[in-house]
Amino acid sequence: MTQTKQQEIHLVNRPTGTPAIEDFKFVECDVPSPKENEVLVRALYISVDPYMRGRMNDTKSYIPPFELNKAIVGGVIAEVAVSRSESFKRGDLVLGNLNWAEYSVAKETKLRKIDPNLAPLTAYLSVLGMTGLTAYFGLLDIGKPQEGETVVVSGAAGAVGSAVGQIAKLKGAKVVGIAGTDEKLAYIKNELGFDETVNYKSENFKEELKAATPDGVDVYFDNVGGDVSDAVMRLLNNHARIPVCGSISSYNAEGQDVGPRVQPTLIKTSSLMKGFTVGNYASEFEQGRNDLANWLQEGKLKYKETIVEGFEKTPEAFLGLFKGINTGKLLVKAAEPEYSKNR
Amino acid sequence: MTQTKQQEIHLVNRPTGTPAIEDFKFVECDVPSPKENEVLVRALYISVDPYMRGRMNDTKSYIPPFELNKAIVGGVIAEVAVSRSESFKRGDLVLGNLNWAEYSVAKETKLRKIDPNLAPLTAYLSVLGMTGLTAYFGLLDIGKPQEGETVVVSGAAGAVGSAVGQIAKLKGAKVVGIAGTDEKLAYIKNELGFDETVNYKSENFKEELKAATPDGVDVYFDNVGGDVSDAVMRLLNNHARIPVCGSISSYNAEGQDVGPRVQPTLIKTSSLMKGFTVGNYASEFEQGRNDLANWLQEGKLKYKETIVEGFEKTPEAFLGLFKGINTGKLLVKAAEPEYSKNR
Repeated sequence: MTQTKQQEIHLVNRPTGTPAIEDFKFVECDVPSPKENEVLVRALYISVDPYMRGRMNDTKSYIPPFELNKAIVGGVIAEVAVSRSESFKRGDLVLGNLNWAEYSVAKETKLRKIDPNLAPLTAYLSVLGMTGLTAYFGLLDIGKPQEGETVVVSGAAGAVGSAVGQIAKLKGAKVVGIAGTDEKLAYIKNELGFDETVNYKSENFKEELKAATPDGVDVYFDNVGGDVSDAVMRLLNNHARIPVCGSISSYNAEGQDVGPRVQPTLIKTSSLMKGFTVGNYASEFEQGRNDLANWLQEGKLKYKETIVEGFEKTPEAFLGLFKGINTGKLLVKAAEPEYSKNR
Repeated sequence: MTQTKQQEIHLVNRPTGTPAIEDFKFVECDVPSPKENEVLVRALYISVDPYMRGRMNDTKSYIPPFELNKAIVGGVIAEVAVSRSESFKRGDLVLGNLNWAEYSVAKETKLRKIDPNLAPLTAYLSVLGMTGLTAYFGLLDIGKPQEGETVVVSGAAGAVGSAVGQIAKLKGAKVVGIAGTDEKLAYIKNELGFDETVNYKSENFKEELKAATPDGVDVYFDNVGGDVSDAVMRLLNNHARIPVCGSISSYNAEGQDVGPRVQPTLIKTSSLMKGFTVGNYASEFEQGRNDLANWLQEGKLKYKETIVEGFEKTPEAFLGLFKGINTGKLLVKAAEPEYSKNR
């Protein structure tokens, strides 16, 4: 360790509406020192995720809001630079909920070692990480797709949506994906094997969605909320199930996000909507990781990543989520491996 | 049987918005004759229920719409006037889904015999009937109230709501009832034992609701939808459950019923909303009826009825539902017993 100063990325304003680049600030500070049972890690890949927008508001939620003028915290793959823990040694590759910073200190209990020989490093932030597990538990525990049923997924080319569609196919469902560019639609249909695709930016979106779901909708995995979800709700079959995973269209809404009330539809169709967060399933992560890793190794589960190069691009990458710049998981490559490169 | 002509009540217009008296028409017709395995019954009590408004629209729902220029059909307690069935004899008291008519013919398999010695006749249309079962299954199967949790019920002085609150109390929950008149609030608090009550017509409704639920809301039994439900949704605890039973505030909405989207709230709190109709639980009715009858006999379950006198008042009684004229179940007394009076 020769470097003594480093950059952290702080949240300096609580955004109203869509976050802006000015809401973030790069702050120079000392590289911290680990205490006993702690390690100093160096960020290699930083995960930027839609749910983080929620933490920028000062409102009650399942996780507390980010603090102003402190580093933002999220999923990071890092390498151990200095270890004062018996569980880790210099050069180990780890996954943790860490600062948006070049270096950070973490307690040994808060890090999980990852093996780059089992899967590419970045997979631990995407298909084998929280996004893969989100798809797995939301779809299987709430959606419960049955053979021959129709599963509709919004945000279908995103990290969660693309896994949802593939897992639903593995369960024998017919899968209809909704996304916003022809390129994304081609990807999920040709490379991931979705049965039908619909572009929500099409003028005839509602008609095209209806045409793609001639037998109605049994499961709607909702990643986006808003108008897209309103349209799917009209097509529900009796006893439909709706895992409500994300509501990206309303995260940036200023004032109240209003739309058709869902209650009459839920009553007419005896349907279920359930919001969830992957943390609800923490006690079952091991099972989920095993299934996902097996499907990955068997070639039944594909994934894509959009990797933005450079730690300094992290805020821009985050803002890009709301413009749909990514196909699959959006990550920032913060640095080339240094301590782990000769392992 | 000397009477040969009778009155039926037909739906002659599909209402837009709130139904009007002109949407109904009294039509004189012949008293029908039963075929083999059928009986002719005479209506004693007619049930008027909010769900019937939905059947007046020509839209897909869990039950088909009423046909125009035909008799409206609903829950009726009747006495057997002429039997051509071995299962029924003249004077038997029965429950069935029957015409809004003085007399109607029914297949023997479509009627259930009821015993006026076990409970008052009208109880079979209210607390021991579909409304009691609706409360029972919606609350216990979807709401799943736990000891010490807070259960909020809207439409709390109605037939379903008043049963929901009492069953929730039996399960050890704290129960908060929402209704629209001081008389109703006094009834559910003083006679039914609700812990707290809130008047949704109060200027400070939102603040009063919040004050009545200092520990948040774990179960919201939703009978009404609309603004009232929007207010409750803001107070949900994590892992809240919302049986969506009725949406009376939107049944008469012209155009689209819009309000704050629920998806962000469901995600933040990992909450569940499920629409249902009592028919979903048909295979478990026996269990429900037994529990309800036991609670009734033990004095743990009270109920109230608002009885409108006279078959000719049936349409007005139905319209009264939307003005909140009733406390408890709203029924029409269509006739004095004749064939059954000497049993």
